[in-house]
Amino acid sequence: MTIRVTIWNEYRHEKEKPEIAAIYPDGLHAAIGNGLTGSDFQVRFATLDETEHGLTDEVLADTDVLTWWGHKAHREVDDAIVARVQRRVLDGMGLVVLHSGHHSKIFKTLMGTTCNLKWREATDKERLWVVNPSHPIVDGIGEYIELPQEEMYGEFFDIPQPDDLIFVSWFTGGEVFRSGCCYQRGQGKIFYFRPGHESYPTYHNAEVLRVIANGVKWAAPVAGPVPNFGLTGPNAPLEPLPAR
Amino acid sequence: MTIRVTIWNEYRHEKEKPEIAAIYPDGLHAAIGNGLTGSDFQVRFATLDETEHGLTDEVLADTDVLTWWGHKAHREVDDAIVARVQRRVLDGMGLVVLHSGHHSKIFKTLMGTTCNLKWREATDKERLWVVNPSHPIVDGIGEYIELPQEEMYGEFFDIPQPDDLIFVSWFTGGEVFRSGCCYQRGQGKIFYFRPGHESYPTYHNAEVLRVIANGVKWAAPVAGPVPNFGLTGPNAPLEPLPAR
Amino acid sequence: MTIRVTIWNEYRHEKEKPEIAAIYPDGLHAAIGNGLTGSDFQVRFATLDETEHGLTDEVLADTDVLTWWGHKAHREVDDAIVARVQRRVLDGMGLVVLHSGHHSKIFKTLMGTTCNLKWREATDKERLWVVNPSHPIVDGIGEYIELPQEEMYGEFFDIPQPDDLIFVSWFTGGEVFRSGCCYQRGQGKIFYFRPGHESYPTYHNAEVLRVIANGVKWAAPVAGPVPNFGLTGPNAPLEPLPAR
Amino acid sequence: MTIRVTIWNEYRHEKEKPEIAAIYPDGLHAAIGNGLTGSDFQVRFATLDETEHGLTDEVLADTDVLTWWGHKAHREVDDAIVARVQRRVLDGMGLVVLHSGHHSKIFKTLMGTTCNLKWREATDKERLWVVNPSHPIVDGIGEYIELPQEEMYGEFFDIPQPDDLIFVSWFTGGEVFRSGCCYQRGQGKIFYFRPGHESYPTYHNAEVLRVIANGVKWAAPVAGPVPNFGLTGPNAPLEPLPAR
Repeated sequence: MTIRVTIWNEYRHEKEKPEIAAIYPDGLHAAIGNGLTGSDFQVRFATLDETEHGLTDEVLADTDVLTWWGHKAHREVDDAIVARVQRRVLDGMGLVVLHSGHHSKIFKTLMGTTCNLKWREATDKERLWVVNPSHPIVDGIGEYIELPQEEMYGEFFDIPQPDDLIFVSWFTGGEVFRSGCCYQRGQGKIFYFRPGHESYPTYHNAEVLRVIANGVKWAAPVAGPVPNFGLTGPNAPLEPLPAR
Repeated sequence: MTIRVTIWNEYRHEKEKPEIAAIYPDGLHAAIGNGLTGSDFQVRFATLDETEHGLTDEVLADTDVLTWWGHKAHREVDDAIVARVQRRVLDGMGLVVLHSGHHSKIFKTLMGTTCNLKWREATDKERLWVVNPSHPIVDGIGEYIELPQEEMYGEFFDIPQPDDLIFVSWFTGGEVFRSGCCYQRGQGKIFYFRPGHESYPTYHNAEVLRVIANGVKWAAPVAGPVPNFGLTGPNAPLEPLPAR
Repeated sequence: MTIRVTIWNEYRHEKEKPEIAAIYPDGLHAAIGNGLTGSDFQVRFATLDETEHGLTDEVLADTDVLTWWGHKAHREVDDAIVARVQRRVLDGMGLVVLHSGHHSKIFKTLMGTTCNLKWREATDKERLWVVNPSHPIVDGIGEYIELPQEEMYGEFFDIPQPDDLIFVSWFTGGEVFRSGCCYQRGQGKIFYFRPGHESYPTYHNAEVLRVIANGVKWAAPVAGPVPNFGLTGPNAPLEPLPAR
Repeated sequence: MTIRVTIWNEYRHEKEKPEIAAIYPDGLHAAIGNGLTGSDFQVRFATLDETEHGLTDEVLADTDVLTWWGHKAHREVDDAIVARVQRRVLDGMGLVVLHSGHHSKIFKTLMGTTCNLKWREATDKERLWVVNPSHPIVDGIGEYIELPQEEMYGEFFDIPQPDDLIFVSWFTGGEVFRSGCCYQRGQGKIFYFRPGHESYPTYHNAEVLRVIANGVKWAAPVAGPVPNFGLTGPNAPLEPLPAR
């Protein structure tokens, strides 16, 4: 079954800084989209500076999984759009939050915490170790993914304890990080995946793209029950009593 | 060590409806406070109609654990106070959310979900079964707590999966409910405990009060690390490399 | 991708008791197999009284997911076969444990607990409520599954806390039960699903069969990493130090 | 309330190797016991070479929390004693498993997995990062504990996903490890804590001893329900039906 994916990107660094554009000439979103090809996926893009950030009701209704990359303009994202995305996630749309998206309004809203962390831009090497080798998100992945240079993110990462912890990162400088985290919220599923600082070619790494593709598949909605809430019938009768 | 507890109550039903006042003449908060006596606890009260809902910076700074009961006036709680309480929870203050507090702004903010559920006021009996007999919250409790009459709350309860599930409720009418749920958020701990509709004498039940007292003890802050967030030093150096 | 399923059945009740044979004339396993048709599944059967209980090294090597139903002859299952199945689960084979399989040697070995519970054969109705509507195991299922008559299983169910809790059962007589439980063990995944007493036509229920089919899909192995254990190289060198 | 602690030690390295005896002249157990002083704890010791490994029915009945250190003689531990300890844990006795105790029979039995891992004895530095700053086990601990030299343990660590993950270790050589893990099993609680290779003075480190003391307090039994299992009454009647 084809998964309808909307890849959302802040899309500012690439337009403003030549050194970032050199790495991602068509934007981070295009690079991420290169990992979601074939009949499994139908991809569209949306960016901050579009009307309604490209996330109209129509677009969201037509989206099975939304991926989110943002960094320096989190505050420019309209609260009404955030509420709209939250509603869709709770109604079943998958959400894959990437790297600095940890500080996006939508992620913080869904987590209920600050999502703060430590960080440093240096010559750190990152190794993402798999701590759950049974999970579909690590399909096709080895014992670890190694990224020669990445921004460091360090614990304490102020998130709720993940329902499933998939990756733990090691950094040269002495830090660790829970870098692949799965959550259920309502009928929706959320996957946070750490790597992807704009100044490194991380989204050209085949293993990173594979994990994102796996995450999209995992987060895709299922045809589970649509819960009924509220008063169970006016003067809702109790169950008929069983014959004894 | 004495735990400083602030018992927060909406305190409207008791003032407006004689039949509720008949059950809780001094307010629900007073009944809840009857379970938090002795040298383990130092109790104060706060209610919606006080200035800043009784939750000033000073009161919160002096509170180890806050218990929350609200029902029909959730919307009257000031957003700024909600943000203040959230901040304190993430900084370590325990939070015990009772019954209809599931729909309070503070609980929904910390959970990131709607916290919706099914409900019915009828002649349901409730049985709260213990599903984790090793947890300090069930100290002194038997295999289940039986309440002859309570409001029914039914699944699906739109909450994140609890870090620890302690009680599951059975209701006469055919429903079940995750009625004792533990969460970690930042340095703080949260316990949601279901029973306590205002029209029943639930907070005069010794076992219910025991669970709340246990929940307060469990949720009390520990002297754990205060995380540092943000840039790890300006031009933060990497760790000194080990001698080889 | 076709999933190779081995449906294991104790297959004694059906041969010894006419009233059970009347419900399952070809054995419980045949009824369970009726839910695993089509190109998604390739099914074989194995039963206790076969050589090596039908679970030779060859059969297990050719099995992606094993389902297990046993009841009164758990002790007759050879310890060496149990160890063999455990090894395969840790190496990635999925395991779906049904009903009274909770007391099988293989389930108890993988859980590390007694897996004890309460039970009663009476006129109980069972309702299995979905408490995680986002999970692939509830694809195609409504808010609850109702079984007019089933054996009662009640808490406390002595299992480790599930990684994901999917169903909670309600029984007429006043009990609840965690009746759909997911676990990761090594590279393998385990799903315990409660219903299916031999004296009721539960495995002719379309929703029950759907859940089992979903469980088999969920438990199927992924091509994740095969962990290396032990000494990391003789005199294993440290990582080359990064250039600074 | 005083917690009765039995500190179990294999006690072979210290007797056989002078260089280990130089670090732990009275045995590892004595060093561990130095962290469990004062009125909170009442400590006894037990070692492999004693009758019944020092773990008679009487000793276990008189033990609230058992700590376990073993390394090279796991196979010499009698299976009957392992079963006895497992039974006591499920009945409520706390268990704190230290370092190479990950491969003890008792830990593997309670986990249901191989508990395999990677390891290396080299000049690795270890940093144990706190990933749950709200947990009583990190009371009095900073953001991380640093050990200048320790044996490396690396992922994948073949354990069930912890109910609570408290520490994640960083090692110089490029590995990470889930080094503080909490589990509930039956009425009992289990804490696995990684550091403590016999050739390093780890159990003279005040922070390590503090974590062990905190772990003992956390794992101490509570007076929760003692579950009843099995048939709920002969011809157990259903609940009386509620008046309608």
